Amino acid sequence: MIKVIFLGFGNVNSHIFDALHKSRETSIVQIFNRNYSKLTSPFENIPFTYNISKIADADVYIIGIPDDAIAVFSESLVLQNKLVVHTSGGAAMSALSSKNRRGIFYPLQTFSKQRKVDFTKIPICIEAENSKDLELLRSLGEAISENVVEISSEKRAKLHLAAVFVNNFVNHLYEIGSEILKDEDLPFELLQPLIAETASKIETLSPEEAQTGPARRNDRKTIEKHLHLLADSPYRKLYELFTEQLNQRHGKEL
Amino acid sequence: MIKVIFLGFGNVNSHIFDALHKSRETSIVQIFNRNYSKLTSPFENIPFTYNISKIADADVYIIGIPDDAIAVFSESLVLQNKLVVHTSGGAAMSALSSKNRRGIFYPLQTFSKQRKVDFTKIPICIEAENSKDLELLRSLGEAISENVVEISSEKRAKLHLAAVFVNNFVNHLYEIGSEILKDEDLPFELLQPLIAETASKIETLSPEEAQTGPARRNDRKTIEKHLHLLADSPYRKLYELFTEQLNQRHGKEL
Repeated sequence: MIKVIFLGFGNVNSHIFDALHKSRETSIVQIFNRNYSKLTSPFENIPFTYNISKIADADVYIIGIPDDAIAVFSESLVLQNKLVVHTSGGAAMSALSSKNRRGIFYPLQTFSKQRKVDFTKIPICIEAENSKDLELLRSLGEAISENVVEISSEKRAKLHLAAVFVNNFVNHLYEIGSEILKDEDLPFELLQPLIAETASKIETLSPEEAQTGPARRNDRKTIEKHLHLLADSPYRKLYELFTEQLNQRHGKEL
Repeated sequence: MIKVIFLGFGNVNSHIFDALHKSRETSIVQIFNRNYSKLTSPFENIPFTYNISKIADADVYIIGIPDDAIAVFSESLVLQNKLVVHTSGGAAMSALSSKNRRGIFYPLQTFSKQRKVDFTKIPICIEAENSKDLELLRSLGEAISENVVEISSEKRAKLHLAAVFVNNFVNHLYEIGSEILKDEDLPFELLQPLIAETASKIETLSPEEAQTGPARRNDRKTIEKHLHLLADSPYRKLYELFTEQLNQRHGKEL
């Protein structure tokens, strides 16, 4: 039984909580958060504190707070030589105070309050300063996911960068698509089967094999038509940059 | 029973063929294509011609050839006053020769040779010069899809533009993610649950509600770290442009 305490209870930690709460291999000892208001009924039977000096004993402490706050917060803990991990893709393990044993427990997924997620397929990226802690984090990860991988802080930084491209930037393209349709009084739902298939495709094809469209074909007539439709839209520059890059990448295959 | 002839047999027409072939409400009379080699066994029982003067009689002729070739090809047909449609998102109905009754049968989806697609959820965008032809195209669409919508050439051009953003450009972001991981010897599969969830999210949340990440939060420290990691990568410009736009769009909410 791995005893876990959550330090901070934002989006990521509350999703990890939901997953670990269902596991028989872990026991959630306590939740620490600066304010109580965010905690709702399912957590009522879990001891809660907003007093940093009242943090209890556990095998692993999971910090889930903004990247910027990790260093100061972890230094302010009264714990000594405990396994303290954070859940951030972007912050290095060295951001944590060295007065405790440091580690990483990073679930590579996008979390929204409104959506439940299935953890079994989510890669859990772990890192630790010694092999015993690494094994504990592996067991903790395997309690909720089939895909636990050891990844260094350097590689994790690149992984997080890649995640920004395929998640945040992709979602911005959805925003642009939605806006173009709204201007024509067309429902966004029209694009959903295309969006779903675009994402499914790369489960069986590489993104290179999956690429289609006017930029890949260098179909200048369609490209010119689109640039004309975009006129002085703020998205024209993005269109041009994508088209240029797709042309460079796929141009030689034509 | 709607009698259909395919004129051209590339990616889009062969997928429409597969779907219509299973429908009891349609009968595929003939396939015309400039060369025979692309046709494989399942089509052997369908009459085929590569002779443009031997095109048979049907209720609707579906042109599936590159946009640029539609005008000249449709003018070269010996048919008169027949319903001739094309399947392109980007070309106007007026690209078709006026010696026949013109129409559009545009399935809004990305098609790859290697992947079967389920047509039932794919929006079929139709357009015609008169209401009788429009009804015929509606019946044809409803033989394979639950989502047949009448859309003008002007609106379809915008829809196609939006499709380029949410399909071709999104896929390019997948290519970038894949490349960043490859440089670190990390498998692309790590990103797949994130890609799938990003696409699923917008079935229940609007893209605006679904947006997360450093650019949305204006997390300058992470953004600077990412720009440093990108150094002189060709993707740095894209990163900057996305970050600027996400900031402008979501900045006021902070």
